[in-house]
Amino acid sequence: MSEDCEIHAANRSGVGVGGDRVRWHAADLRDPSSAQALVAVVRPTHVLHLAWEATPRVYNQSPENFRWLHASIAMALTFGELGGHRFLGVGSSGEYDANGAPCAEDVTPIRPSSIYGKCKAACWLGVTAAAQYHRFSAAWGRVFLPYGPGDPAGRLVPSVMMALQEGRPVEVTHGKQLRDFIYAPDAAHLLVKLLFSLETGAFNIGTGHATTIRSVIEYLASRHGGRSELRFGAIDPPPGEPPVLVADMTKTTETLGSLALTSATDGLDRLLAPRRSAPTGANPTLGSSE
Amino acid sequence: MSEDCEIHAANRSGVGVGGDRVRWHAADLRDPSSAQALVAVVRPTHVLHLAWEATPRVYNQSPENFRWLHASIAMALTFGELGGHRFLGVGSSGEYDANGAPCAEDVTPIRPSSIYGKCKAACWLGVTAAAQYHRFSAAWGRVFLPYGPGDPAGRLVPSVMMALQEGRPVEVTHGKQLRDFIYAPDAAHLLVKLLFSLETGAFNIGTGHATTIRSVIEYLASRHGGRSELRFGAIDPPPGEPPVLVADMTKTTETLGSLALTSATDGLDRLLAPRRSAPTGANPTLGSSE
Repeated sequence: MSEDCEIHAANRSGVGVGGDRVRWHAADLRDPSSAQALVAVVRPTHVLHLAWEATPRVYNQSPENFRWLHASIAMALTFGELGGHRFLGVGSSGEYDANGAPCAEDVTPIRPSSIYGKCKAACWLGVTAAAQYHRFSAAWGRVFLPYGPGDPAGRLVPSVMMALQEGRPVEVTHGKQLRDFIYAPDAAHLLVKLLFSLETGAFNIGTGHATTIRSVIEYLASRHGGRSELRFGAIDPPPGEPPVLVADMTKTTETLGSLALTSATDGLDRLLAPRRSAPTGANPTLGSSE
Repeated sequence: MSEDCEIHAANRSGVGVGGDRVRWHAADLRDPSSAQALVAVVRPTHVLHLAWEATPRVYNQSPENFRWLHASIAMALTFGELGGHRFLGVGSSGEYDANGAPCAEDVTPIRPSSIYGKCKAACWLGVTAAAQYHRFSAAWGRVFLPYGPGDPAGRLVPSVMMALQEGRPVEVTHGKQLRDFIYAPDAAHLLVKLLFSLETGAFNIGTGHATTIRSVIEYLASRHGGRSELRFGAIDPPPGEPPVLVADMTKTTETLGSLALTSATDGLDRLLAPRRSAPTGANPTLGSSE
């Protein structure tokens, strides 16, 4: 289990969190030779591969996705060649052709609309092929809408929080989109459980709860108590954006056991806590419809 | 249309058929830099990308599939970057999770069981992503069971013909598999029509007719008139081989117009013709069930 294992982690700087528990390596994982060299040095039994282009507003159509696709499959092949046991890659709800119903891993069609979604779906096929060739165990976590500590500034929650704090108007889309917000530490917890499970295949990393983007923004505004104007509809949503993107969590729950996941209000409150000493008044709740 | 165009073709030797009509180039298309260099020299408006590992009995699980996956996406990206208009790649019926019903392009799940099928399906996702990024038109022809002139010796039809000719026993699987046999020149014809159409997406390249493998072997034996023993069941079929793999040709027919396809008996007769001056006796027909 994860408590006993030696943990190696990599990013471009070779510096990161975790203290003595984690040995950091500097590697540019977009570069197949760098990714392969890292695997050859560490010789991991298990890999949790999270790295990918994720710059807000850019990642969906970025050509960096092609580099990640190739380098990730190359890394999985080297991992298998060197005798690795278990590879967990991270995919996206953007792989699904969401039709309004909750997305089920082996039922909802994989028909991604973005370059990001297409490269993620192609990567999973490539990883399963590598697993078949080298006979290692492979799984894939399709993450829904993560939010939480460490979010880059351009993402929804921090950008709204920043506007509220600065008293600027909050300019957003209509906000009626139903999304499956998952508190990032919960997503991390599910991914680690999945890494140490024996089940192969794709698994949703979400909560199963549908929340409107509007209600998240309104909640943040209500907790902040400032006077920022909420301008819903000021921005057009990206073309082809699905109205509903929510996980069916049946398969993940059956595989990983019951999941004590943080509610959206609790998760947002934790993000607000460093800024506000204590919440005031009664807690509003988040609605899944208008 | 294809009649007016300048035709460039590539293989490893740089020598091929077509006479003055075709300019041949030597390129190893498994090598991304070689594939990209070819595209940069020729600057094609249209690409029909047929090359892939296809060695009988080996291709399904070969690691060469990973090289083809990467090099094909790299070629598509360079093609788009240099202003190419239309890219047609060749996929496989092996991408489908065939459940007995005819495979329909946008309905039957893409859940390939072989490494070959997984890499083909990943390639199509990568090509669509490249097309989206560089705004070119992309299509994908999923070829069912081609047979015809030029088949390598290890494939079903030539290997049975060879055994019959040499009077050896024909050792085969049970032969009950239902397959969609398409005469290779017909597959070529459909692919060229698809190359010059404007429709994007995946299209089946088959006939829509289900034929048992057994009936093809029995037909070849009956036409040969020799005394080879047909040993059905002497070989185990590959694990996970689907009992039925037949194209639903609705989408292809709607897109390319009505298709005058060669029947299996006519196609096999053409292959037998060089060996036999004229068929004798009444033509047996090929059954789609036992």
